[in-house]
Amino acid sequence: MGLDTFIHIRHPDQTILGALRAKVDGKTKPLGALGKLETLALKIGVVQQTLQPSLQRPVLLVFAGDHGVVAEGVSPFPQAVTYQMVMNFLAGGAAINVFARQQGMQLRVVDAGVNGDFMAADGLIDAKVGRGTGNFLRGPAMTPEQCAQAIRRGRELAAAEVEAGSNVLGFGEMGIGNTTSAAALMSVLCGLPVAECVGRGTGLDDAGLRHKRRIIEQAQDFHGRHAADPLWTLRTFGGFEIAMMVGAMLGAAEKRALLLIDGFIATTALLVAARLQPAILEYCVFSHRSGEAGHQRLLAELHAIPLLDLGMRLGEGTGAAMAYPIVQAAVNFLNEMASFESAGVSGRED
Amino acid sequence: MGLDTFIHIRHPDQTILGALRAKVDGKTKPLGALGKLETLALKIGVVQQTLQPSLQRPVLLVFAGDHGVVAEGVSPFPQAVTYQMVMNFLAGGAAINVFARQQGMQLRVVDAGVNGDFMAADGLIDAKVGRGTGNFLRGPAMTPEQCAQAIRRGRELAAAEVEAGSNVLGFGEMGIGNTTSAAALMSVLCGLPVAECVGRGTGLDDAGLRHKRRIIEQAQDFHGRHAADPLWTLRTFGGFEIAMMVGAMLGAAEKRALLLIDGFIATTALLVAARLQPAILEYCVFSHRSGEAGHQRLLAELHAIPLLDLGMRLGEGTGAAMAYPIVQAAVNFLNEMASFESAGVSGRED
Repeated sequence: MGLDTFIHIRHPDQTILGALRAKVDGKTKPLGALGKLETLALKIGVVQQTLQPSLQRPVLLVFAGDHGVVAEGVSPFPQAVTYQMVMNFLAGGAAINVFARQQGMQLRVVDAGVNGDFMAADGLIDAKVGRGTGNFLRGPAMTPEQCAQAIRRGRELAAAEVEAGSNVLGFGEMGIGNTTSAAALMSVLCGLPVAECVGRGTGLDDAGLRHKRRIIEQAQDFHGRHAADPLWTLRTFGGFEIAMMVGAMLGAAEKRALLLIDGFIATTALLVAARLQPAILEYCVFSHRSGEAGHQRLLAELHAIPLLDLGMRLGEGTGAAMAYPIVQAAVNFLNEMASFESAGVSGRED
Repeated sequence: MGLDTFIHIRHPDQTILGALRAKVDGKTKPLGALGKLETLALKIGVVQQTLQPSLQRPVLLVFAGDHGVVAEGVSPFPQAVTYQMVMNFLAGGAAINVFARQQGMQLRVVDAGVNGDFMAADGLIDAKVGRGTGNFLRGPAMTPEQCAQAIRRGRELAAAEVEAGSNVLGFGEMGIGNTTSAAALMSVLCGLPVAECVGRGTGLDDAGLRHKRRIIEQAQDFHGRHAADPLWTLRTFGGFEIAMMVGAMLGAAEKRALLLIDGFIATTALLVAARLQPAILEYCVFSHRSGEAGHQRLLAELHAIPLLDLGMRLGEGTGAAMAYPIVQAAVNFLNEMASFESAGVSGRED
């Protein structure tokens, strides 16, 4: 692949942090009283290298793809639902449409590899790598060329959004079967038992959950585990939408945008990206803790503290959209709040 | 007081709940996948008695008052900060101004009993009961007449907002010393040791925290504890802003508005209101878990699950403002999302 040679994510310069902290601490509030909003304001100031950060043209990229492993009965919903839900996105009727509208975020639906053809439509980006991945129980999910293509296209897509004026990008997905793919990736890359990574997805019962775990375990027995090779792991167990999200996250951070990470699948894509380029984590806001089992453990692996914990487990970027007003609030208080000095408010007496 | 005879909060009719649940479950998402947003949509539908709820003219009422007990050195900030922060609210420079603007909420600053006089100003409501309460270490914080006046004015204020077209009201406060008052109230009404109710407020150190606890304990030894009498407890240990908030919460629920409860102080006011009229809890959304020690225990006492946990501990209604987009999202998904049927999306196969 040679990915490392063409994508390089720089650590943001931390020099500005002291001035940012002084600005936050001078605001008319007790020290630390805005909690996570303060941490967030510091992070955004560092990413943007300014004491007056701003959020420009927020975009939500939702990557859709199908998964060969659904042939093994790992989801209660049929594969056709991926296609149908993309149609629902394009018609404006899904949860992510509602939330993106509410937050004033632009929604882009990316066909990374859905098993079905779409007519051209506003907001749809055709980046199809294939009509669904291969069944990873029988062979690798994708070829090295397909994986490289997905990453490259993702990087280009994100770069194009930044060049068009966006400096904050949310990442979401749709793909029946993709919690199976994500759990397999997480288990290999984190060196954890499958049981600690797998969850009920769209709503498996206990028997379905046991079956899903066994399918992943069998696939890992078949392919082996090469945790030190994130790209091998991605192409063996991943999905087209996950691989393209890896590329898009890398491309966005490369352009110094702020990344809003959604739930379990998006965080798994970030895990792959962070194994390739650890500095990417400094550009990330973790939007929420998903209700999908495994996400909490995955967040801990990345030392990530999410903003929201609403028990949501829908994907589509819905967590990222819900977290957006909190990110806005962090920027707004830093820019708009008075200081003790400017407002003539007395400080502590001790 | 005879409060019970003139304020009566009805339990909302639950008959509509089944139809609301069917509507939520028919949306294009796995069952339960929107987590707390689903619970919230059901609650709002029940409060408004409709399958198409809406949020009209959201208002934040911020009640300000001073506390005689600050003479005992329970806050690191001087009493003058209450007055100065109200001036900051009126100038638009406080955190709550920033967040209310962001969320499109109208802000009303209510002078319930600040120790200082304000010129008339846009957004300021003069409802002053006195120039700060009495020091409850030496006597009751307020007279029965003052307490009744504060509750009555609060009820009138909230009713006026509803009559002007608001159906969602947030409640916040400002008052140097009011975490001391709130901890005293909570401790008596919940029958808990002061140590479990008291916190660092605007930033006490360990010695300051011990001193604050001892002051409250001494005051309780002086007055006794009459947990069965919430109005006695309120007038003995409360603040004018807390008593007026009690009245405003009762008045808003009486008019069937949705209540957004802020942090520790606002939840303590609600505790008093709920001891008077338990049905009020069915109209409440708990916006966040404050970083102030004691709030978690108080939420548990009310069987309340807050929406946010951002480590904020600023008061002013900032938690209520931050939670508002989540409340909006609950209403929006219920109204705007497609159903499986309308979108032509397949259901589960099992």
